[in-house]
Amino acid sequence: MFKKSVVEVLDTTLRDGSQTANIGFTLKDKIRIAQELDQLGIDYIEGGWPGSNPKDKEFFMKMKDISLSRAKIAAFGSTRRKGIRPEDDVSLNSILEADVDVAVLFGKSWDLHVRDVIKSSLEENLEIVYDSIHYLKEHGLKVIFDAEHFYQGYKDNREYAMNVLRNAEKGGADVIVLADTNGGTTPIEVFEVTKNVRENISSRLGVHMHNDIGCAVANSLLALSAGATHVQGTVNGLGERTGNADLIQILPTIYYKMKMMVLNGEESMKKLKQVSKLVYELAGINPNPYQPYVGENAFTHKAGVHVDAVIKVPRAYEHLDPTLVGNNRKFVISELSGTSNLLTYLKNIGIEIDKKDPKLKKALELIKEKENMGYSFDIAPSSAVLIAMKALGIYYPFIKLDYWKVIGENSGMSIAVVKVNSNLEVSEGVGPVHALDKAIRSALVKVFPEIASIRLTDYRVILPGEVKNTESLVRVTIEFSDGTNMWKTEGVSTNVIEASVIALIDGLDYYLQVNKKIKGALSSLEV
Amino acid sequence: MFKKSVVEVLDTTLRDGSQTANIGFTLKDKIRIAQELDQLGIDYIEGGWPGSNPKDKEFFMKMKDISLSRAKIAAFGSTRRKGIRPEDDVSLNSILEADVDVAVLFGKSWDLHVRDVIKSSLEENLEIVYDSIHYLKEHGLKVIFDAEHFYQGYKDNREYAMNVLRNAEKGGADVIVLADTNGGTTPIEVFEVTKNVRENISSRLGVHMHNDIGCAVANSLLALSAGATHVQGTVNGLGERTGNADLIQILPTIYYKMKMMVLNGEESMKKLKQVSKLVYELAGINPNPYQPYVGENAFTHKAGVHVDAVIKVPRAYEHLDPTLVGNNRKFVISELSGTSNLLTYLKNIGIEIDKKDPKLKKALELIKEKENMGYSFDIAPSSAVLIAMKALGIYYPFIKLDYWKVIGENSGMSIAVVKVNSNLEVSEGVGPVHALDKAIRSALVKVFPEIASIRLTDYRVILPGEVKNTESLVRVTIEFSDGTNMWKTEGVSTNVIEASVIALIDGLDYYLQVNKKIKGALSSLEV
Repeated sequence: MFKKSVVEVLDTTLRDGSQTANIGFTLKDKIRIAQELDQLGIDYIEGGWPGSNPKDKEFFMKMKDISLSRAKIAAFGSTRRKGIRPEDDVSLNSILEADVDVAVLFGKSWDLHVRDVIKSSLEENLEIVYDSIHYLKEHGLKVIFDAEHFYQGYKDNREYAMNVLRNAEKGGADVIVLADTNGGTTPIEVFEVTKNVRENISSRLGVHMHNDIGCAVANSLLALSAGATHVQGTVNGLGERTGNADLIQILPTIYYKMKMMVLNGEESMKKLKQVSKLVYELAGINPNPYQPYVGENAFTHKAGVHVDAVIKVPRAYEHLDPTLVGNNRKFVISELSGTSNLLTYLKNIGIEIDKKDPKLKKALELIKEKENMGYSFDIAPSSAVLIAMKALGIYYPFIKLDYWKVIGENSGMSIAVVKVNSNLEVSEGVGPVHALDKAIRSALVKVFPEIASIRLTDYRVILPGEVKNTESLVRVTIEFSDGTNMWKTEGVSTNVIEASVIALIDGLDYYLQVNKKIKGALSSLEV
Repeated sequence: MFKKSVVEVLDTTLRDGSQTANIGFTLKDKIRIAQELDQLGIDYIEGGWPGSNPKDKEFFMKMKDISLSRAKIAAFGSTRRKGIRPEDDVSLNSILEADVDVAVLFGKSWDLHVRDVIKSSLEENLEIVYDSIHYLKEHGLKVIFDAEHFYQGYKDNREYAMNVLRNAEKGGADVIVLADTNGGTTPIEVFEVTKNVRENISSRLGVHMHNDIGCAVANSLLALSAGATHVQGTVNGLGERTGNADLIQILPTIYYKMKMMVLNGEESMKKLKQVSKLVYELAGINPNPYQPYVGENAFTHKAGVHVDAVIKVPRAYEHLDPTLVGNNRKFVISELSGTSNLLTYLKNIGIEIDKKDPKLKKALELIKEKENMGYSFDIAPSSAVLIAMKALGIYYPFIKLDYWKVIGENSGMSIAVVKVNSNLEVSEGVGPVHALDKAIRSALVKVFPEIASIRLTDYRVILPGEVKNTESLVRVTIEFSDGTNMWKTEGVSTNVIEASVIALIDGLDYYLQVNKKIKGALSSLEV
């Protein structure tokens, strides 16, 4: 089934990825990501640039005590500076000091950069490339040479760019990587140039793509089609500007579509969603719901016409079984969706309703009404399920919020007073939502001890409307977990505290409804 | 400079794009988008599916009264159902009733779909394609035929897929569009299959790509490289699942990189960022800061090593002048950035500081300290500028917040009491942030009447930390506008109200600092 070629993968999430605008990994984060990448089956983990960043040095030190099952840790650095011997170059020596087995060395291959950026002669740069690689090889390292701006260099001065690669080969580079550093090369150019290089270079050939024209993933794949067998990228496409090539998108296409062996095959592919999610979490950025393969919407069907068809013949509508990348097929509840979507959704949590039940129409109308008020149940289907359960007459009123009041000021704790199921409770908290959450749970936990295990795993607020100011409607979305299952609820109000209370109560209520009424069904719950 | 071929563009934001999870356009939105697309120079605007959606019918009606300068409105629909004459088919007739000049008709070209989805014979489907097109042609319409799942069909049964195209040609189709409906075709396959079709079909050839393996943009470009001259897509890649091909990313590559004429050339390209922004706004989703060409980070440089170099030789680091797509180059202030980034930023707002000033280092340390506390100044640089101004001794303490208190409950208004610059004020609001905003402005507007013109244009809250619950730190980001300029500030606290107050005060303070101290400089402000 598989072609002979095996594709090598270098992950640079910890180096190029850490230059993403608005993120920063702690040392602890970096170690955790490295371990996860090793478990995924990545061949090389580029851990950082020891010559430019002291935090990276610490990473290499710490990693010496951690045993990895497959991955090799690589240190990144530049070729030597002009007019200096390799043994006197701080950058090259910092790679040696990192005490790793693999070096990723970047050098100039575009004559413009040689002349105008490092202000060296074209001839000297060839020497720089040769003897920088040679120096590291003499010290026993495997050397991956990244030819910076290669595609631009090839277009401007093809002979020179090829000479740089030849010098890298002579210097002993184990892999020669063509980098589209500014990300502006078109797919057809990548294919044709890479093919030509493949015919003229005998080392293993790799690619390093940036996404500035939205083609990093495809350009990486095209380079493989043209004969490369080493690919570099980051988890979720993190990276400067528009990011690097996203390994999470590239890997399943290599394995499932192009039938080339990569990592540990299917075993690795099934972990992709989990790895993607962890890196988003540690980077502190929101997962992209539209991300190919692993996004929340990647296998989600909205328009009524498709839902029936997808159920009938999945292969006719889905390019891949979503579980092969650790994802799931989803049908969402929304204004546009028909009865069948709602039925499918209820069935997934164990509630069987006759599709001819006239109350279903009423439920959809109520959902639509709420959506017109600013709710978006695509994001938080659990709140929609509660509305449907009420309309269908299968809802038990476990929680009755009689009253809440909150007082906060610039110094000191917030104080919340709530009356829930006729119990009056007062709590202090570090903020108003914390105080309210504590008070509501205090009032409920005596009757429903199981809610003690529920944790809030995410909280966010946006203005859903077009006109925005401090008296706008806000939409609060809260994600809950009981350790096994996750669910999301929403509240909409002009008052951020009220919206939070609505979403909090819905979250506890949903858990009680599903848990109490259809014991055991929660384990099959997917939101 | 330009190759002879002119690429035709069909935008389906209003049809395929409206199936994006979590969005819904109102009729008013649709009309506004259509007008904007016409101004952009789009050739065909696919307005909707009149046979499946009554809201779409209304759109076609309304558009008859609106004169467009270039674009033609197209109605979408399916080929006739099996066992029925075209003149009796509801879907075909609904296209005629839409009273447009152009029809986009989709039909089956994958034998699997013919057999298992519409359950017709392969032979009858050929007739369906032929006479559905023929019927619309007889009524004087231009017909664009979308061959659904063409690439899958070609792989499974090449001869049949090609026969479908030949029947569409015989029926009189003006454009034959190869659709990768499930978005799973690899770039090399798209290139090779399209090239082969181009050699066997004489009509104008188009493509319609979905992004399920992250290649929709590149696959569209490859199809053009293989001889197609008609491309379909949506603004910002809106669409079901992972979306359609993003025209905002495709168009500048066609024009600036592949040198093919498209729309109104450079004049259109300069409007891309503005069109992208409008569609995000109307769709109610956040702009993607990493979006190629038009994203906030697309031409942003973070790592210290690059900033100097970019200033020196832009072409060496940027694949395109950002103003050619209506975007701007940006240098951001963050933990990783060096002094030069901060200096560039201050210079942009008119503050010249000697780069050897020892206070600069102190400013960077303070910024870094705040980032460790959960701030992210990449998002809200104005708050970082205030910190820097304080450290540099060029800050005037216009605003002193002595005290705030807020009381809210489940019914009724929130009440805020503030003491600002020794003025005690009380205000009511629909929520606590509204009440506080009103009270703070009341206290300040007597002394600084100019703040009356400041509007809050966006407000959002996230949990920046890894551990999340109701006592977590929240980060509030607020965007302000004075009608001409925009700026963003942040507040971080465990208390969402306190974080909001910090960001609100910073927003007013920043305006006063920049406006009072360096009169006139605000107009050059970019945040």
